[in-house]
Parts: sequence; C-alpha cells; structure tokens
Amino acid sequence: MPVLVMKFGGTSVATLDRIRRAAKRVGREVANGYDVIVIVSAMAGETNKLVGLVEETSPLFDAREYDAVVSSGENVTAGLMALTLQEMEVPARSWQGWQVPLKTTSVHAAARIEEIATENILGKFAEGMKVAVVAGFQGISPEGRTTTLGRGGSDTTAVAFAAAFGAERCDIYTDVDGVYTTDPRITSKARKLEKIAFEEMLELASLGAKVLQTRSVELAMRYNVRLRVLSSFEDNNENAGTLVCAEEDIVESNVVAGVAYSRDEAKMTLVSVADRPGIAAAIFGPLAEAGVNVDMIVQNIAEEGRTDMTFSCPTDQVKRAEAAMNAAKDRAEINFHDLVADTDVCKVSIVGIGMRSHAGVASQMFSTLRDEGINIKVITTSENKVSVLIDRIYMELAVQALHDAFELERAA
Amino acid sequence: MPVLVMKFGGTSVATLDRIRRAAKRVGREVANGYDVIVIVSAMAGETNKLVGLVEETSPLFDAREYDAVVSSGENVTAGLMALTLQEMEVPARSWQGWQVPLKTTSVHAAARIEEIATENILGKFAEGMKVAVVAGFQGISPEGRTTTLGRGGSDTTAVAFAAAFGAERCDIYTDVDGVYTTDPRITSKARKLEKIAFEEMLELASLGAKVLQTRSVELAMRYNVRLRVLSSFEDNNENAGTLVCAEEDIVESNVVAGVAYSRDEAKMTLVSVADRPGIAAAIFGPLAEAGVNVDMIVQNIAEEGRTDMTFSCPTDQVKRAEAAMNAAKDRAEINFHDLVADTDVCKVSIVGIGMRSHAGVASQMFSTLRDEGINIKVITTSENKVSVLIDRIYMELAVQALHDAFELERAA
Repeated sequence: MPVLVMKFGGTSVATLDRIRRAAKRVGREVANGYDVIVIVSAMAGETNKLVGLVEETSPLFDAREYDAVVSSGENVTAGLMALTLQEMEVPARSWQGWQVPLKTTSVHAAARIEEIATENILGKFAEGMKVAVVAGFQGISPEGRTTTLGRGGSDTTAVAFAAAFGAERCDIYTDVDGVYTTDPRITSKARKLEKIAFEEMLELASLGAKVLQTRSVELAMRYNVRLRVLSSFEDNNENAGTLVCAEEDIVESNVVAGVAYSRDEAKMTLVSVADRPGIAAAIFGPLAEAGVNVDMIVQNIAEEGRTDMTFSCPTDQVKRAEAAMNAAKDRAEINFHDLVADTDVCKVSIVGIGMRSHAGVASQMFSTLRDEGINIKVITTSENKVSVLIDRIYMELAVQALHDAFELERAA
Repeated sequence: MPVLVMKFGGTSVATLDRIRRAAKRVGREVANGYDVIVIVSAMAGETNKLVGLVEETSPLFDAREYDAVVSSGENVTAGLMALTLQEMEVPARSWQGWQVPLKTTSVHAAARIEEIATENILGKFAEGMKVAVVAGFQGISPEGRTTTLGRGGSDTTAVAFAAAFGAERCDIYTDVDGVYTTDPRITSKARKLEKIAFEEMLELASLGAKVLQTRSVELAMRYNVRLRVLSSFEDNNENAGTLVCAEEDIVESNVVAGVAYSRDEAKMTLVSVADRPGIAAAIFGPLAEAGVNVDMIVQNIAEEGRTDMTFSCPTDQVKRAEAAMNAAKDRAEINFHDLVADTDVCKVSIVGIGMRSHAGVASQMFSTLRDEGINIKVITTSENKVSVLIDRIYMELAVQALHDAFELERAA
C-alpha cells in the first residue's frame, strides 16, 4: 500500500475535539487506501509549560534532562490520537522516538536525525495496522537517551519519515490554509499558491514566513519529498493547500512567487573604519563569536582610506552586537569612529526561481519603490531573491506596491 | 558504597519548591555516604489529568495507549528532580522505565515487575554519579512498550529497586509522618509507632490505612526490604517516621499494634436460604463473577433446614451484589426469601502479631465493646487480627475504647 505522512501541529491537536477532527482526516486517507504515518506535536501550550518548568528549575539546564522532560508532551498526544483512531475503528498504535527507533545525534535539544528504522512500523502495517502515530520532535541518542530536535522539529520529523518510507506525500496540517504570495493581513490581493518550488519556499521560510521551518524544507528538497501545507480547520478537497515540490513539477510560474517581509531586523553602521584587507574578518569574526546572526552586509565607497560598514541583524541581538563591537574596538584593529544602530527599519524581499531567467526583476523592484518615494538603505541579492532594508513605516506600502507591480494576484 | 532508595509521592513533588525540598533531603543522604536511587511519582494532579484525557477520548481504552499517555507524568518529575539535584551540584541523572530497563509483564495498566537490570545504574554510580532518579510506576513489556504498574505502583517500584540493589533501606516520603496506632483524627492518644512488623502493616494496609499500598508491603516482606515511612514536610532526625521491618527486628512490642477502621463497608444478609451442601458456592460464585469483593462471611445457625447468610462488601458494590443475587435467585438454586442491605455499618479491627502468643485478645475486644453498649453484627478473625462489623454511629467510640483497653498510647 502507498504510504502517506500527515503531520498535525500544536494548534491542530490543542483539544480532544481537535484531535478527533484530525483523526477523521486520517481515517479518510485510510479509506483512500493509504497506510498512514501520523506525526503529532504536543497539545498547544504544553511544550511551553514544560520548558518553563525546566528553566525555572535550572536556568543553565542539562540539555539531556531538558529533553527527557520536554518530549513528554508529544507522548501524550500520540497516545490520545491512537486511542481516538481506535474509537473510529481504525487500527492504530502510538510510537515514541525510542520505539521506532528514530536515531539522532547526541546534540541534545537540537539533535539531528541520523536514521529512521522502518522495520517495526512496516511489520505492523503488514499485520493490518493502518496508522502509526509517532510522537514528533524526539528521537534517541547513541547513548540511549531521549533527544529533541529543536525548533521546527515536528515538521522535520514528518519529512524525514516521508523520506524513509518513500511516502507519496507529506501533508503538514497547520492553522493556515497554504502559502500565500504575501501576508493576507497586508494586502487583500494576496493569493494562495497552488504550488511553490522548494527553493522559493526555503527563501520565504528564512525570510520570516512562519508556515514551514527552513530545516524541514531543506530536508524535503534533498530527498524530493512532496510537501503539502494545508489547514486543519477547513474542509480540504484534493487540491487544497499549497504543494511544495521540485521545480520540474511546476509547469508555469510567475517570475516572482511572493513578497516577504520581516520587522525583526536592525541596521548597524560602523562609521569610518579603516579600508584595508582583513577589515571584514576583523569585524564579523567577533560578531559571529558573540552569536550575532548577521544577515545583509554593505560596504560604502571608501574615501581617504576609510569606509562605512553596514550590516543587519535581528533586533534582539543589537545589544550583543554593540557589546562585541565595543570590545573589539579596544583591540584597535577596527578603530571605528562611531556605531549607529537603527531599529526602525524592516526587510522586504521578492522571491522567485523565475528571476534566474528574467533580467530586470531587481531593477523593476527598485523603480517600484522609487515611484512610492521609498528610500532603499541596503540591498542584497541572491539567485532566487532580492531583499532591501527600508524604513519600517513604509513596510506595508512597499509590500502592496511590489505585489501589484509583479501582478501576484494573478496566477501564471 | 551502600545504596539507599528514597521515594517521593505526588504531594511531595507537587511544585518546584517541594521538589527542591525533596532534593535537599536526597543531598543530605549523599553527604551521609550513600549512592541514592530516587523514585518519583507524577506531580500531584497530573496523573488524574492524563487519566481524564484518556477516559474522555476512549471509555473502553486500549490499555497500551493508556500506559503511553499516563506514564508521561513521572517522566516530567524525574527530569525536574535530576535538574534540581544538578543545581545543588549533586551528580544526578533521570531514567525512564525502558532505560533502566525495568522489565514487566504485558498486563498493561496493571503490570507486574519481572526484573530490574542493575548494570546501567551501577555503571553510572561507579563513574561517580551519586543519584539515579527513576520515574516510578512504569516499566517496559516484552513487546517493547511502556507499561504502568497500577495502584500503588510507585511504592512498589521503590521496594523492587531496594530489593534489586540490596539497598540498606527504602524510605517512603509521604504526607504523614509515620504509621500510627490509630487515626489521630479519632483519638488524640494515637501514638506514632517506631517500628511495625511487615505482617501488621499488611493487615493495616488492607484494612484501609492509606499510608502504604498492600502490594509494596508484600514485596518488602518477601525480599526483607527495610521500609521507612516518613514525612516530606517535617525535619526528620535519624529515628523519624516508622520502620516497617521483619518481626525479629522488633525486640518488644505490644500485643495489639493498632486499631483500624473502615467506613466503606456494607452488610448484606440473604434471609432464609436452604441449608444444604454447596449453598456457599452457589452464592459466592456469582458474586465473584460480578466482581464483588466479599470480605467477611457469617452463616447463622440453621433452623428447619434454612439459614441466614450474611456477608460484607464495599459500599459502592452493594448495587452490583444485589443484581448478582437477584439474577442467581432466578436460577432457583439459592431461593432466598429476602435480601437486606445495611449500609449504616462500619468495620473496626485490632491488629498485632502479639495475638498469636496471647490468648484472650479477642474476648477482651468483645467485652470492651459490650461495656460501651456496642452490638457486634459480624466477627472475623485471622492470625494477626480481629475484625467486627458494628453500627457506624459507634465507630469513633469503639476505636477510642479499644485504643484505651489495649493501652496503645504507651509504647511496649
């Protein structure tokens, strides 16, 4: 029988009633002829509660004990989901990470999946079991201890199971009904995408779209797992949600797939640093050591041997970046005149694999923003995206204007 | 190093603050030179919450899934306790049932312990770990699934660990400070016992004293594990609590160790049944099949080939007993004239291994009750106890009078 993986996030299993609703969807896929692997998160709020208990007990906790505690939320949901399916007369049982086993590295609280054993579950499918409910987000280390996979771990678990079992598809049930051309709260013209390429989804995820975690998309791309994002709260037909798939599965697409934004970005400028070989390393080395996630970097034109160096980082890392820079200044290699932090900025990006074959996309973006009177502070480009840093007050305006300019309300 | 087992029940780990208090006690025993195995229950209320979720999901639940869900409460406490000990710089780690492994039968929700592997934990002790925190109440079945041990499972886990590791003692921390000659709420003369024999504790436990579960006392008796019951909420010195131990470890003891009572007892009388061989089997067979726990049985003197048969059972099983008897009546073998249920009774018992060597203990009990004008409805005796059924309104009076008559306020 073909295998289908279905993943339900915390809000989709927040109550017994929602678990029942999710179980009905699973039952329908069993009726469609699938052997189903269901990956569940903890009931909404449970993981935060457990993390709170751990942090209150031990601020610098032993990550092995953190994992032992925090993983218990998924165990509860997995058992309840199996019971719910049994009540509907669907043969089901639950599996915890160590029972599968889903083997991971020993990096507790942020483990990586190494191997998923398929024999146990396939054996049960062969005996007539229709649904394996697996506690997401957890595995077992080589030392035999429970590990957790860190942020987005349940999505990653689902994709890894789909890859290991050669599943026909991996359906991620969440509280949105798909991936949109942009945030519908910003423009009512936002359109749900029927399909999106892995590369585009990756860019959108890393740019702050909260639908899927970067890590799960990377894994899906590597193993070519067809990922579908769809809503737990609506009736879905065959073509519901958004399919995240390989480029070659998308026949027609717009040049730009979507417009993303992030408010969580600050601009830092080191004023007048020496323009000499090695200056970038002298600056960004200490920042990396301090754990600052530098995103965009721009170096101004040098005048008389000095230059301004501008970079962006998450707003909540500004203090850390300032401390690292002031400490580095004493070491005299950088010797900047001033450090200016601007937290009233935002990042707006256009994303699309079509850019590679279409010239002029970036310049169309810049002229659209110019026409709206929006000043661009920093620009970065990559193969599949163009990002700009602008004043935060213009964010909505920029997103709406770009959505119009690239005609994203219309399908290709 | 000598091993000590310490068990903390749900109220003793109900909050992070209480877990800290418990951890301090553990730290003190480590300082005393012990390698400590700590058995923890779920935080008070958690197990009931999980059981509620399971029962709401599936009234006739699959016990394997029940166990998967319900065991998670202990996992949380075990991790938090290990973290708390680490914060106090006591080397500790948590173990779940499958990690030990604690092997059980496959009878889910009521599994019996088959074997406790000691190598893993002893290996860690040898490496310098001082405390193994073990999630109580759970184990692993031969099929590799999580099992739970049913009522009193955490106490039983503790005793089994003490037996497996040859522990010097098994300390059960609870919300009372020991075993009393009777319930202190009934007479202020109730005295805490310094020591009590396994056999006496067994009788008291089965008579409704809630301090220890029968099953854990049985196990302690079989493996001669010295059990100490003491309070989580008081400072305990060397001789705190009550030691439950073998008879030969008790040099002097009173003839009667304690007076127990139970309100949860009903008297049922089958009026005028045929007095013929096999009548008892005809009555008590159907009751056993209906799951009625018959305790005391009395058959009156027969007159003209007919007799009255009286028995006692828990109050909440009266309806079930009546249904079973009325169904059996139709089968004509019993053919009683009437069935009279009296739920206004109670059971009062005196318990003590000293009775075996002292004649007249029962008759002293009967005359004491007679002097108070209390009518005895049913009597049963065994090697270590005498129980009577009396009107419930006289319960406190009977307990106080017997406590005085056997001079229980004074130590031997």
